[in-house]
Amino acid sequence: MAISRRDCETMDARDPLRAQRDKFTLPEGVIYLDGNSLGALPRALPARMRLAIEQEWGHGLIRSWNAAGWYTMPRSAGDKIARLIGAEPGEVIVCDSISVNLFKLLAAALRARPGRKIIVSERANFPTDAYITQSVANWLGAEARFAAPERIDAAIREAGESLAAVQLTHVNYRTGRRYDMARITRQAHEQGALMLWDLAHSAGAMPLELGNWGVDLAVGCGYKYLNGGPGAPAYAYVARRHQAALEQPLTGWHGHAAPFDFAPEYVAAPGIERLLAGTSPQLSLIALDCALDAFEGVDMSQVRAKSEAMGELFITLLEEQLPGEGFTLASPRAAAERGSQVSFAHPEGYAIMQALIARGVIGDFRAPDVLRFGFAVLYLRYAELYDAVTRLAEVMRQRAWDRAEFKSRKAVT
Amino acid sequence: MAISRRDCETMDARDPLRAQRDKFTLPEGVIYLDGNSLGALPRALPARMRLAIEQEWGHGLIRSWNAAGWYTMPRSAGDKIARLIGAEPGEVIVCDSISVNLFKLLAAALRARPGRKIIVSERANFPTDAYITQSVANWLGAEARFAAPERIDAAIREAGESLAAVQLTHVNYRTGRRYDMARITRQAHEQGALMLWDLAHSAGAMPLELGNWGVDLAVGCGYKYLNGGPGAPAYAYVARRHQAALEQPLTGWHGHAAPFDFAPEYVAAPGIERLLAGTSPQLSLIALDCALDAFEGVDMSQVRAKSEAMGELFITLLEEQLPGEGFTLASPRAAAERGSQVSFAHPEGYAIMQALIARGVIGDFRAPDVLRFGFAVLYLRYAELYDAVTRLAEVMRQRAWDRAEFKSRKAVT
Repeated sequence: MAISRRDCETMDARDPLRAQRDKFTLPEGVIYLDGNSLGALPRALPARMRLAIEQEWGHGLIRSWNAAGWYTMPRSAGDKIARLIGAEPGEVIVCDSISVNLFKLLAAALRARPGRKIIVSERANFPTDAYITQSVANWLGAEARFAAPERIDAAIREAGESLAAVQLTHVNYRTGRRYDMARITRQAHEQGALMLWDLAHSAGAMPLELGNWGVDLAVGCGYKYLNGGPGAPAYAYVARRHQAALEQPLTGWHGHAAPFDFAPEYVAAPGIERLLAGTSPQLSLIALDCALDAFEGVDMSQVRAKSEAMGELFITLLEEQLPGEGFTLASPRAAAERGSQVSFAHPEGYAIMQALIARGVIGDFRAPDVLRFGFAVLYLRYAELYDAVTRLAEVMRQRAWDRAEFKSRKAVT
Repeated sequence: MAISRRDCETMDARDPLRAQRDKFTLPEGVIYLDGNSLGALPRALPARMRLAIEQEWGHGLIRSWNAAGWYTMPRSAGDKIARLIGAEPGEVIVCDSISVNLFKLLAAALRARPGRKIIVSERANFPTDAYITQSVANWLGAEARFAAPERIDAAIREAGESLAAVQLTHVNYRTGRRYDMARITRQAHEQGALMLWDLAHSAGAMPLELGNWGVDLAVGCGYKYLNGGPGAPAYAYVARRHQAALEQPLTGWHGHAAPFDFAPEYVAAPGIERLLAGTSPQLSLIALDCALDAFEGVDMSQVRAKSEAMGELFITLLEEQLPGEGFTLASPRAAAERGSQVSFAHPEGYAIMQALIARGVIGDFRAPDVLRFGFAVLYLRYAELYDAVTRLAEVMRQRAWDRAEFKSRKAVT
């Protein structure tokens, strides 16, 4: 028997995370399946930002760098992220963008593995990861090898003792395909290389165990599942065992051991702060820091369980309600191999997504033909997935009707 | 006859910029002489940020990247800055921090001058400039030469045909000493090198003519005289003649000619956008964009005239009211050689500045012994300078009294 809206409402009633939605403000009438692109607005955030702008900046002025904890926030916000990704306090720092942090860490990895010249990555990686990997290789005399996902293991083995680093994104932005982080990390280590993961589509959507899995380096962004706001600062993770020796090229003053000595020579901060370069965009950083509090008391294994259940439900609903409409699942069928999104390819994907957004269901489109539906489970309801698929069915009926209308008009004229 | 408070009030009454102060919110009872460290809060900004957070993010969600003009703001805010520094629209882009932008542009300069290996800079440069210059040299096989200010001309000549770039800060953060931008730029060009200026302490405080002076490259920050808020994004300037050939290493996706094609190969955007790396910290960027509107209709030559007058007034008042108190002018005596600040060295500088701040006069201290007073003339009054010096005199009297008290107690015990 097909799944009904009532079934979905029952799932919502039993959802151990259902109260989390109250932590967010969502626009009336919108079903938001794009939290993997830009997270929703945390309810506590507007008041926190008013305080930051009117009191801390407006009244405190320069004094707030100390008095309001601005200086230490890259680290204190980093510690909040550490908990979500299975890192220890002092292993994560919030700074710059993923692109800039990738540059720092890939350069550092090459320096940490002198004589090794190969970086293995994936061609279907998020573009910025591929661009920066290639650029680091070009500028620092290394070689970037881009393999297909199923060829990563082989590419690592083939590079052998020339392998300096492996750079992959844990969950693919287009398909949602998820790597086995522990296994690939082990393979990189077997060749003596460092492993650098991009967690953009993972952190905040599932439990991660960077420490237990032996991950060396990682980057991630603040604006997707972490809900830090548009273009929220990114973060960098360096396992503690690598920190003291890590040399990165963007040696801005905030990475200095004593920035306010204004010393002429650079001396890197002893810990994770050496990843800092310039002054943080403090308003954006405060927004992220506030948003991270929404994860307080949240059990990430419940987040993952709901995320898997939502993926399964969405696929089933779409297959039940839209058979023969030309949608092809572009994500792995097995929930264990997916992140927190489901993607479908459709030759008319762009137009369909536009029509769906016009009906208040916001997903997104990735060229050439992928419709992407993300499940930010802290604020998403099962019944909304039912309604989303129903509206998608309406879009397809409307399109069929429009086509028939167009043909019949052509027949008349 | 000594300058009276009444004299200063007369100067305020005649100040053509006096109405500008209404564009800012300043805390009651505070005299703010640190706008060269963190600019004051523009009055229009809290409402603009509420709109950005609650409507654009909270309601518009991902749609606001297009609908609210987020994507194009690095460029549109850059165009607002271009007007202030004598650049053309399309020559300035807002992004990242000064540190990160220096790295991009110094690397690009080395690539643009193949075979040339020397970068001339200044040891007393702001630390981040020196650190990044040294790091670029270390990582890319070049040589950084740090000269004393009076030896810059000679260092440029000596480097000769090996000179790739000259990197200097226009106005020194500690002393306020100002270089002749046109002259030094000409000297760099005579050796066939590129000139890269840091405008952190210049932009928004005086008229600049980057175009007329032939400047090749520049960086600057948004949080000082531009009032963009704590850690506001920085900007980069590339003269249009250099843009098409410029290659920088931080090739993040926003610098791509077509970021949303998600193409596997990097192709740099044709214009200034190729300086972009990752996604902009949009809330901080919106704050800066809004703050820049405070300069609308402002005549920068009036800004400079008031800035010079304030510097002269402050020095005169301090010399009149605090003779023999141990203050030594650490800035050039000639107004033409200064930026918009006046610095005094004093062996007890740190303690004096702390006591002054406790009395509501906010300047800052730069190790080892410099008291720094900045004049952000859009919101500063001449009478406030009078009151600031009066309070400084009180601080010195109190210290003298405390010392005498301490001695007499010692004599008694």
